[in-house]
Amino acid sequence: MMIVMHAEATQEQISAVVKKVEASGLQAHLSRGAERTVIGVVGDSRKIQPENYTHLSGVEQILRITRPYKIASREFIPLDTQVRVRDLTIGGRQIVLIAGPCSVESRSQLLETAYAVREAGAHALRGGAFKPRTSPYSFQGLGEEGLQYLAEARAETGLAIVTEVMSVSQLPLVTAYADVLQIGARNMQNYNLLHAVGESHFPVLLKRGLSATIEELLMSAEYILSHGNRRVMLCERGIRTYETATRNTTDINAIPVLKSLTHLPVILDPSHSTGHWAYVTAVARAAVAAGADGLIVEVHPQPEKAASDGGQSLKPERFAELVRQVGRIAEAIERELAPVPQPTAISVP
Amino acid sequence: MMIVMHAEATQEQISAVVKKVEASGLQAHLSRGAERTVIGVVGDSRKIQPENYTHLSGVEQILRITRPYKIASREFIPLDTQVRVRDLTIGGRQIVLIAGPCSVESRSQLLETAYAVREAGAHALRGGAFKPRTSPYSFQGLGEEGLQYLAEARAETGLAIVTEVMSVSQLPLVTAYADVLQIGARNMQNYNLLHAVGESHFPVLLKRGLSATIEELLMSAEYILSHGNRRVMLCERGIRTYETATRNTTDINAIPVLKSLTHLPVILDPSHSTGHWAYVTAVARAAVAAGADGLIVEVHPQPEKAASDGGQSLKPERFAELVRQVGRIAEAIERELAPVPQPTAISVP
Amino acid sequence: MMIVMHAEATQEQISAVVKKVEASGLQAHLSRGAERTVIGVVGDSRKIQPENYTHLSGVEQILRITRPYKIASREFIPLDTQVRVRDLTIGGRQIVLIAGPCSVESRSQLLETAYAVREAGAHALRGGAFKPRTSPYSFQGLGEEGLQYLAEARAETGLAIVTEVMSVSQLPLVTAYADVLQIGARNMQNYNLLHAVGESHFPVLLKRGLSATIEELLMSAEYILSHGNRRVMLCERGIRTYETATRNTTDINAIPVLKSLTHLPVILDPSHSTGHWAYVTAVARAAVAAGADGLIVEVHPQPEKAASDGGQSLKPERFAELVRQVGRIAEAIERELAPVPQPTAISVP
Amino acid sequence: MMIVMHAEATQEQISAVVKKVEASGLQAHLSRGAERTVIGVVGDSRKIQPENYTHLSGVEQILRITRPYKIASREFIPLDTQVRVRDLTIGGRQIVLIAGPCSVESRSQLLETAYAVREAGAHALRGGAFKPRTSPYSFQGLGEEGLQYLAEARAETGLAIVTEVMSVSQLPLVTAYADVLQIGARNMQNYNLLHAVGESHFPVLLKRGLSATIEELLMSAEYILSHGNRRVMLCERGIRTYETATRNTTDINAIPVLKSLTHLPVILDPSHSTGHWAYVTAVARAAVAAGADGLIVEVHPQPEKAASDGGQSLKPERFAELVRQVGRIAEAIERELAPVPQPTAISVP
Repeated sequence: MMIVMHAEATQEQISAVVKKVEASGLQAHLSRGAERTVIGVVGDSRKIQPENYTHLSGVEQILRITRPYKIASREFIPLDTQVRVRDLTIGGRQIVLIAGPCSVESRSQLLETAYAVREAGAHALRGGAFKPRTSPYSFQGLGEEGLQYLAEARAETGLAIVTEVMSVSQLPLVTAYADVLQIGARNMQNYNLLHAVGESHFPVLLKRGLSATIEELLMSAEYILSHGNRRVMLCERGIRTYETATRNTTDINAIPVLKSLTHLPVILDPSHSTGHWAYVTAVARAAVAAGADGLIVEVHPQPEKAASDGGQSLKPERFAELVRQVGRIAEAIERELAPVPQPTAISVP
Repeated sequence: MMIVMHAEATQEQISAVVKKVEASGLQAHLSRGAERTVIGVVGDSRKIQPENYTHLSGVEQILRITRPYKIASREFIPLDTQVRVRDLTIGGRQIVLIAGPCSVESRSQLLETAYAVREAGAHALRGGAFKPRTSPYSFQGLGEEGLQYLAEARAETGLAIVTEVMSVSQLPLVTAYADVLQIGARNMQNYNLLHAVGESHFPVLLKRGLSATIEELLMSAEYILSHGNRRVMLCERGIRTYETATRNTTDINAIPVLKSLTHLPVILDPSHSTGHWAYVTAVARAAVAAGADGLIVEVHPQPEKAASDGGQSLKPERFAELVRQVGRIAEAIERELAPVPQPTAISVP
Repeated sequence: MMIVMHAEATQEQISAVVKKVEASGLQAHLSRGAERTVIGVVGDSRKIQPENYTHLSGVEQILRITRPYKIASREFIPLDTQVRVRDLTIGGRQIVLIAGPCSVESRSQLLETAYAVREAGAHALRGGAFKPRTSPYSFQGLGEEGLQYLAEARAETGLAIVTEVMSVSQLPLVTAYADVLQIGARNMQNYNLLHAVGESHFPVLLKRGLSATIEELLMSAEYILSHGNRRVMLCERGIRTYETATRNTTDINAIPVLKSLTHLPVILDPSHSTGHWAYVTAVARAAVAAGADGLIVEVHPQPEKAASDGGQSLKPERFAELVRQVGRIAEAIERELAPVPQPTAISVP
Repeated sequence: MMIVMHAEATQEQISAVVKKVEASGLQAHLSRGAERTVIGVVGDSRKIQPENYTHLSGVEQILRITRPYKIASREFIPLDTQVRVRDLTIGGRQIVLIAGPCSVESRSQLLETAYAVREAGAHALRGGAFKPRTSPYSFQGLGEEGLQYLAEARAETGLAIVTEVMSVSQLPLVTAYADVLQIGARNMQNYNLLHAVGESHFPVLLKRGLSATIEELLMSAEYILSHGNRRVMLCERGIRTYETATRNTTDINAIPVLKSLTHLPVILDPSHSTGHWAYVTAVARAAVAAGADGLIVEVHPQPEKAASDGGQSLKPERFAELVRQVGRIAEAIERELAPVPQPTAISVP
């Protein structure tokens, strides 16, 4: 941490700041510039509250030097984390595709989608049983019934299940069915939930909040990691900006930035990051080209009848085309799509 | 809802859309313009998913006409809602000041602050016992011990207690001590929590999310209202923008906009909306001038030792000056500060 | 400037940075922290390009300490700048109101508005003769004819004239008629124009760009100041954010922030910063309460017939009410409205 | 245009709106919904000012249906525009790479860069002779001397020249040397300049403003097109958001959105859109994968000595690697890099 003093700060003011730094058990290192004096704080400045220095007379601003996260940083863990989910490895050379409906609406809708996306080349099935909806009057999900259909779809198709958990109280139920716990964008800073998920040992797909910075996303990952769960995957899903031509703005920069700052796998969700099916495939190609480790894509057999997110869902045949195109991009950067899983149970579709 | 067709949409495509509208039990009303045909949906279009029309051939865009919230709207309830909290009325002619530390840190810190803010003219005491913190390594609040100190401060000073509830599981505990439940910005779309708070009959202070639109804030209020709790107050606390000179950008426009769209009281939090004590008083004056029904301000007896938010907390003497200035602004717009409450218990401070 | 090295930077890398700093004629001051080494650059770091250090091995980030503007800063000129325009003084205790139509549309429209706003209490008349319009198909202004009407209105009413100059080539013409040159938001970084206006000695009203930071606004002011023109006034006119309920988001924080960073007068434009007449008066009150030195407000005798910005223009009687309300707010903060000017020519309206 | 009336609007208010529509020579088409009446305006609503309806009693909001641009739209011109620049065709199957320094700093710097980028596979040379700089104290460009070096580099290497024109007065000079006129982000809404460039017949590279919407970018293109110049190329260069980990946020969505709305070629500038050399190559790959027709990349032989933008400039060897990677992505989507041009003059480098 560096404390920048006002140009006209007095010697007494500087001494008072130094004294306060030293009282915290840290060292103060003075650097007198042509215009300003800067006081460097030597020692683990995570121990102190930078804001507490704002009130001292003569202080102009506080600059943070050390990153506030630790276990999530590539400095701490230089090698890529690979998260194992059933037969899949996420975060390695192979690219993983998660696909399925926004919401689980019925047994037949889910099974139809599961077969279709596996046929097209998906590796995991997404589908919400508990739905966070902006309106209290919208469909809120099937709850446990939805989880049962997801488990049935896994048994039939071999696809791993990715589904959202919205609160600590849902955790026992969701972990009884899911392979990957999804933390939605609106819950990225629901710290009770992050804490609880951190104490489980389930793989987690942590979505970036609607206007979270990359650093805040990594701090939320740190919550989970610091409570003992190292199986964390990050998901860029678009951020809120002034642009209204798309639902969100895909922060494609976030992919190389995250790859440089952290060892955790990075997944992109082009359905939410664009909000319109017509743009999903182009952005999916871009994500893989930029270095994403996987994609999570909304697919619905009849988007015009979907209970939610119909406008951004792909029909199965369009998703199949996305897989073909993304596969070619993967090869161009010397990666490849993961092999499609096999069902664990015998079934006659 | 209006469905705008592409300029080159065919008659068959138009008919298919009309058929789908009618199949939902609504009426379609055609308006053929010089360039485009627009299909108006007549009936309660809250019943249908606008997104489901995006995939139909020939559809260019969908425009929503009806507001998605109902009970929160001034159309539904034209008269201002007044929320009664102990002896206070929020949302009427009188302006209410809520003040106190970001976190409850100790019994002495809280009582000292409570006496100081009441002396300065505050009507309610804020203070967090459960703290949502970006970093897992930061102080997380005193929990129930903090709530007990708040209750003690109320008994001593007569100030109503405003404190945050972060999850459904904390609700029984927090309602045992608090007068007003604060829903923090990060939880504005924690729908389980909104639902539970909606079933309680406690006054709620609902903070706007960091990048929530005004409409989304009203939709979150609708969650609470629609579950039966009408004692909702809204809080503007700054939004995230590209500007970095301040922690957030105070959306002062939100005050007249909310006053026009809804009957609910509107409170402004100039501490979070600026992030720096030096700007708090100017923005507090602006808020009252713009029509806010109250303020919530961070005050700490020794901001340079605060466990959180020290940089944006006022010292008690600066808060006293804020009250004087805000009082004069209130008079200029023919309002006034509410009278300061009296303690309910006899005490020798 | 502080250069933060990576945690794992080698001694050679640190030495190379130090060498490069010294080669620029500046001094390097090392501060070795527990995790990182920070190199402070001592001397006038405005001479060097911080970006040039990004490529050196081992460099993690560059932190700027010194503000990039100088003459615009309160550090350089501690006392408030007061800009004299005809009989008005802007930036002192008195608050100045500039009002008038978005565009000069006709002689009668302009004269009618000028009389009406002076009657209501305005001190200066705004009106565009050259209009920057998003669409090439929109009304582009009356040009010199418009300027002539403005001069006539000044002669009749005594109001000072504020009008926009869009390019260097228009400067001779506009300065022949105007009292204050307005630089529009879209031209805030039109450096050729800033340079030319800086060489004139005309008062300038510099509007903040749609997404300019406060620092960038001050850098644009610095362009004008550094070319010799000290008669600069700043104008906050709303910034672009994700919120769509209003045309822009009024950055009310910018008022106390600018008042702290610079000595230049600060004006607020509530017409553009809200985009809707219904919100203009509330935000005008807020601006004066927050410390603005004046307001610039769009007024049109028949907004429903305006050639531009009709939706955000006040009718004269609503503007008169705004003046009354703003006057009371001014008194509440111990300021007052400037006296209304008298015509310089004898006229029978 | 659709005019949405308040739920409680009276029949008189509705009639007044209808009358005003008809007085403009257009037709009004009523659609009475369950809650609101909507008045559709039939005819070319580009003729009227939507804002003028805001003041009529009973009007709640105005919704625009027709896109405000015409020649720029794919509806008007369905086939892709291909812009011919010397031997290059931009906007066809081949992908075009423009590379070079931010500023022309010296003859040797420019020639060295020109040879290096052609060797690496570039098709055109970028370099600013006139530089828009945030600070009046920064290097402002070499002016005509810089243009002469650019022309010399073209003669030596055969690379087409892309350089910025900042004002109408510079136009005769810049067109004497350049092959493509670049309109910088800060000038995207400098309408005098757009008008003048529209009357020239020079190819134009129009950069998106820092916080311009896609629609505003197309409106600026419309200015140029409507004045007769059809040789317009659009450039996405990152937008301003709250994220500070990168200089700007690359709006990768803009590529498929623009490709769907317009027939004009789309170029991406990964240097400005990320602001850091380390992220340029990943985002360049993403752009081509998403469907961009070309890239414009900052390359400097010694970025640590660059007069501007050093931190985001690639060294020539890193640019060569970018070209290799981007070439493979182009093949994966069945496109290819354009052939490298040959010098027009004989030269011994």
